[in-house]
Amino acid sequence: MYKKIDENDINYLRSFLPKERILTGDEISNDYAHDELGGIESLPEVLIYPLSTEEVSEIMRYAYEHDIPVVARGSGTDLVGAAVALHGGIMICTKMMDHILELDENNLTVTVEPGVLLMDLQAYVEEHDFLYPPDPGEKSATIGGNISTNAGGMRAVKYGVTRDYVRGLTVVLPDGRIEQFGSKCVKSSSGYDLKDLIIGSEGTLCIITEAILKIVPLPEQSVSMLLPFPSMEKAIEVVPELIRSKASLTAIEYMSLDTILSAEQFLGKKFPDTNFEAYILLTFDGNDLSQIEKEYTKVADLCLSMGAIDGYFVDTEERKKSVWSARGAFLEAINASTDEMDECDVVVPKSRISDFIKYTHEVSKEVGIRIPSFGHAGDGNLHIYICRDSRPEEEWKDKLNKAFDLLYARAREYGGQVSGEHGIGYAKKEYLKKQLGEDQIELMRNIKKVFDPKNLLNPDKVI
Amino acid sequence: MYKKIDENDINYLRSFLPKERILTGDEISNDYAHDELGGIESLPEVLIYPLSTEEVSEIMRYAYEHDIPVVARGSGTDLVGAAVALHGGIMICTKMMDHILELDENNLTVTVEPGVLLMDLQAYVEEHDFLYPPDPGEKSATIGGNISTNAGGMRAVKYGVTRDYVRGLTVVLPDGRIEQFGSKCVKSSSGYDLKDLIIGSEGTLCIITEAILKIVPLPEQSVSMLLPFPSMEKAIEVVPELIRSKASLTAIEYMSLDTILSAEQFLGKKFPDTNFEAYILLTFDGNDLSQIEKEYTKVADLCLSMGAIDGYFVDTEERKKSVWSARGAFLEAINASTDEMDECDVVVPKSRISDFIKYTHEVSKEVGIRIPSFGHAGDGNLHIYICRDSRPEEEWKDKLNKAFDLLYARAREYGGQVSGEHGIGYAKKEYLKKQLGEDQIELMRNIKKVFDPKNLLNPDKVI
Repeated sequence: MYKKIDENDINYLRSFLPKERILTGDEISNDYAHDELGGIESLPEVLIYPLSTEEVSEIMRYAYEHDIPVVARGSGTDLVGAAVALHGGIMICTKMMDHILELDENNLTVTVEPGVLLMDLQAYVEEHDFLYPPDPGEKSATIGGNISTNAGGMRAVKYGVTRDYVRGLTVVLPDGRIEQFGSKCVKSSSGYDLKDLIIGSEGTLCIITEAILKIVPLPEQSVSMLLPFPSMEKAIEVVPELIRSKASLTAIEYMSLDTILSAEQFLGKKFPDTNFEAYILLTFDGNDLSQIEKEYTKVADLCLSMGAIDGYFVDTEERKKSVWSARGAFLEAINASTDEMDECDVVVPKSRISDFIKYTHEVSKEVGIRIPSFGHAGDGNLHIYICRDSRPEEEWKDKLNKAFDLLYARAREYGGQVSGEHGIGYAKKEYLKKQLGEDQIELMRNIKKVFDPKNLLNPDKVI
Repeated sequence: MYKKIDENDINYLRSFLPKERILTGDEISNDYAHDELGGIESLPEVLIYPLSTEEVSEIMRYAYEHDIPVVARGSGTDLVGAAVALHGGIMICTKMMDHILELDENNLTVTVEPGVLLMDLQAYVEEHDFLYPPDPGEKSATIGGNISTNAGGMRAVKYGVTRDYVRGLTVVLPDGRIEQFGSKCVKSSSGYDLKDLIIGSEGTLCIITEAILKIVPLPEQSVSMLLPFPSMEKAIEVVPELIRSKASLTAIEYMSLDTILSAEQFLGKKFPDTNFEAYILLTFDGNDLSQIEKEYTKVADLCLSMGAIDGYFVDTEERKKSVWSARGAFLEAINASTDEMDECDVVVPKSRISDFIKYTHEVSKEVGIRIPSFGHAGDGNLHIYICRDSRPEEEWKDKLNKAFDLLYARAREYGGQVSGEHGIGYAKKEYLKKQLGEDQIELMRNIKKVFDPKNLLNPDKVI
């Protein structure tokens, strides 16, 4: 069905791309065969690093004429096989399209190429006294990847998700045409919302080559507080009360002692406190310290009345470093603690978060497998890891499937969704279908055909 | 192409709908032939008031089988002919589906039927100490209509638009199937974003029968301030400075003396001040009055330094009433001042708002026609009215087209969009096409076909 790439194709592509930006065969590192989690493996036949929208357009035009599949990839930090070239073909890596093109202080927007890393964007706008609020844990992901999965992150409690900060996209359609969806405007009621259709579509509808992002004035104050609890049950029971209290929180993260110990071991760095079973990490921000003080006093009192042992400010540079570097390393630390793992990134209504975390403990016992988790307690998005440890293959697959079936079924029952921010990719397609039903998947398939009638862009992903 | 409705159809529909909820022929008031602006006129053959999703589904299933066009309508307050049954057929009026189904304080959502009026929703949640932030001027519009046009309103500067407050939708597809897009969850990366595709699609893809809306804790304080300026030029020059100042403003509205005088005459009520050419109305909200005071002092100083004559608090009940009732009556007041009018609801990047308002004055002079305007200076969304006054038909059409061509061309040049919040409907299709180009319109047409292969839902609208 798809054309295999031959010398003629390579020669054509080399006619407008210099040698160092187009790799073939053994020149392609095996890193490009898989994503950060691994498990789904396939190398592209050609790997290209374009520099511009026009180059991407030219590549797509050629691929479209010759029925060559194309996968766009940023840093490859995803966990569901979304950025793997299942059918070979061309991989477009955006990492050289990493320029911040404009900071528009009059419209509060920043215009970027898709290969800009989240950490570089955050640092850049903060230097200019602005904040780009979406804050996924993986700071070395690209903005293009963040948009393609509608990444959420820790500050979603207050600020929302990536979708809420994308004002406009320049994209290349599968046949090479260049279009702009959205604009710098704040409002729009001008035809169907193609921009939001692209956000979260995991590179299956078109390739994002430029994005206009909304920024906000940098809050002058940001305060974090770590609260230890004698048990995870006690810790997570606080979360719905925090939400009901209407306190203005920026982030509500939860973490268990075993996850913290994994991170300590992985990083070789001490966490400020490892005497208790469970921790809640809260962040507040704003311009007025006295207002923030009011908020955190109210919140700390509530937590203490519900079983928190203490409340530490994460205020010294050392403490900030040790807490946030641990938080940033949880995924890798858990991964290092097991031969293999798979993840479940469900999101449930905020009101069901504590029920769902408790349920992961039940599943762990019932299936007989280790299931550490951490995540965004304040917005209902959990990161749950099923750990193989050193089980033999067959037992692992069996237990993994059992655990997944239970977890996704419970998420559906709670009115949840398959993925809060990691996406569907290749690994979660079956669960998406169970969640949405054949009718909605069929609508999505037909929308895919509208954009990509030859099914060339990231085929076999999402739907 | 479409089937004309006959006795058999009526008999079938009456088999499950009581007589008082299905009207035909002369029973249908002429109000249902047009929207609030008028100009585009056509009556449906049958007018139905359903009570439930299931009834809508049953009507659609029948219409689909028999090729009968269907238009959904709320309060009919739109201005672009979106809710007019151009091809006759069935009109589904949602006004009896006006129940607030659930207030979920744990998830900060309210679930409503589409016929709930904006003013009723706002009052209901405020009684419960919450705020539904979108605040379009037309409070008697339905929520279904607000969602269908992605209505924006005055508080968009701080809070965003309707889209930002829709978490989930229950919809009926053209063939009668019922689907839910989205959920109570805060985050999602679970397949294509069908929910956002429906928002702003003006009833052309499916019929919304239920919506889960996000609400926020009601700010304890809200303060408005009216600032008179010696000229509109002076007034609007302040706007980009306000945005650059990073002041936390909830609303920035502008209004000219002639619009205020029209409203005074229309309402028979005095505005607090009519001594100056132009006014800016600012709103601030939050929980901490001292913080708000800091903000408005900073902002008032900035405005005074840039030519504001004064700054009045809109604080007494009487003053609030006179200012906000005038603001709410601008559209009707301008309409009452002329034999006929048409409107242009462009949105431009915030940085171009003052240039664009100045340009409307140039166009007025150049074309020789009265063009009052008012609107959301803080988010770039203008409401511009081309007034026929008592011109003969031919001259009016000629001048109207000239003015529209100039205004929309300039909006395009500024990176603006055809409509900020009123939608495209029937009246603005030509300008949408000029704005987006044939390729994007073709993508939209093909998406329409995915949902509505028989082109039965609100045909000939948007695209």
